[in-house]
Amino acid sequence: MRDFSTDHRWLSINTATVRKQGDFIAIVEACARLGIRAVSPWRDQVAQVGLDKAVKAVRDAGLDLSGYCRGGMFTADKAHLQEARDDNRRAVDEAKALGAPCLVLVVGGLPQYSRPGSTPTKDIGAAQAMVEDEIGVLYEYARKAQLPLAIEPLHPMYAADRACVNTTRQALDICDRLDPAKGNMLGVALDVYHVWWDFELFAQIKRAGQSRLLAFHVCDWLVPTRDLLLDRGMMGDGAIDIPKVRAAVEAEGFSGYVEVEIFSEHWWQRPMEDVLKTCIERYRTVV
Amino acid sequence: MRDFSTDHRWLSINTATVRKQGDFIAIVEACARLGIRAVSPWRDQVAQVGLDKAVKAVRDAGLDLSGYCRGGMFTADKAHLQEARDDNRRAVDEAKALGAPCLVLVVGGLPQYSRPGSTPTKDIGAAQAMVEDEIGVLYEYARKAQLPLAIEPLHPMYAADRACVNTTRQALDICDRLDPAKGNMLGVALDVYHVWWDFELFAQIKRAGQSRLLAFHVCDWLVPTRDLLLDRGMMGDGAIDIPKVRAAVEAEGFSGYVEVEIFSEHWWQRPMEDVLKTCIERYRTVV
Repeated sequence: MRDFSTDHRWLSINTATVRKQGDFIAIVEACARLGIRAVSPWRDQVAQVGLDKAVKAVRDAGLDLSGYCRGGMFTADKAHLQEARDDNRRAVDEAKALGAPCLVLVVGGLPQYSRPGSTPTKDIGAAQAMVEDEIGVLYEYARKAQLPLAIEPLHPMYAADRACVNTTRQALDICDRLDPAKGNMLGVALDVYHVWWDFELFAQIKRAGQSRLLAFHVCDWLVPTRDLLLDRGMMGDGAIDIPKVRAAVEAEGFSGYVEVEIFSEHWWQRPMEDVLKTCIERYRTVV
Repeated sequence: MRDFSTDHRWLSINTATVRKQGDFIAIVEACARLGIRAVSPWRDQVAQVGLDKAVKAVRDAGLDLSGYCRGGMFTADKAHLQEARDDNRRAVDEAKALGAPCLVLVVGGLPQYSRPGSTPTKDIGAAQAMVEDEIGVLYEYARKAQLPLAIEPLHPMYAADRACVNTTRQALDICDRLDPAKGNMLGVALDVYHVWWDFELFAQIKRAGQSRLLAFHVCDWLVPTRDLLLDRGMMGDGAIDIPKVRAAVEAEGFSGYVEVEIFSEHWWQRPMEDVLKTCIERYRTVV
């Protein structure tokens, strides 16, 4: 397990963590000032400043990317399917332009929530099947672009509206069916927030192995959690034994950036540099 | 699959559903008036009126029980372990006195939340192991009392503070290790709210079979869900395909009561009879 206590060379900041405090350019510049070597941008934040300007900012600052957020929302009715496919191809293109090592996939829940306007349904089994089919479709495109896809299992509390892939086992089952040869172009993004509770987590990390472990995200689970979406905790403030999960991931050979992704009304109220400095301090002490 | 459209003979009301509107006696009487044939009491509601009076009320009203809520909270530090064990034995005794067909087990999360005062820890793996050990201990006592134990996998959003058994697979793994011979005294209580999202749900229901399916609970998952604990939906108001789950459970031979359990600040504001009549109407149309 890597020693994180003496520097923060493997820290990456997911730009949603400080999305309310400044635009993408401001975030990139703040990270560079604080010696943070990598970011993981969200599409809407990139779109806000323009892709070309975002690419230039990342290059000028000399930053790496640890991922690009996000592709997915694959579930749609027939009338919205082409829109979903086009949207995901653009996400691959943007990730490639930015130099991201992978596109993170939040796969979508029931179609009426993932692609608004789609005909309402309660058939989560059909949604899960569609997700797999559509990852298969996008995978062909992404392989040609040489851009790995990272399926992110989301916490089951998001199954209805955000992602109906909710466990590491489920995500790896999809990977194994679509890419049985483990071609290094399809894997998972594991966020401790989504997977920490799973009694199978460590067995599934072992199953994943290095070739499937494309991204590793951290934050914390607060008790109580006051909002399903916007009350994630800073590392160390919650119930998750983060070092234990990191140790397991690194034991499989994961050696990439550890990405901090916190959606929190609390942390969005704080000045950007304070939040980033707290991320650095917690990275060195409790991650 | 049983036809529920013409009467409500298999409806049971979990007494938490109307806990703010009246005491246990008032709930029993209201159910009897409306032709509801069964209830599932909570321990604190029984304690409030006294066990003997609760037993008498159930008998006088001619009601069945579909379960007793709840045993569990097995996770404790050494200083609180005996208290937890004594508490659970009392729960078995009370369930027996009331004529419940099973004791529902909410197994506990991290010990500092399950048995307050216990030393804080983040070791959820240790909590899961302790849960299994302690179910084993209680199982010996419950078997002698001939009182089946029903492990309720809780939604993963309760893993930290309420239950670190979060999937049907996990609960059945425990059952199979503690009771490989399937002696009809250990099984699961499945609540659609907790398990609906699981891609393995239908495979695990099949695995469970009749002998492990001790209780079946319904309510609904609202989008958005505004509170992790107290925003459950009335059947039909949310995202869950309840009839599909009921069909699967009944295909294995489950023929017991379908228990409505709704924790909801919204429904607790409504008069008791309105809520119960709504339960009856939804039971006949969307369950």
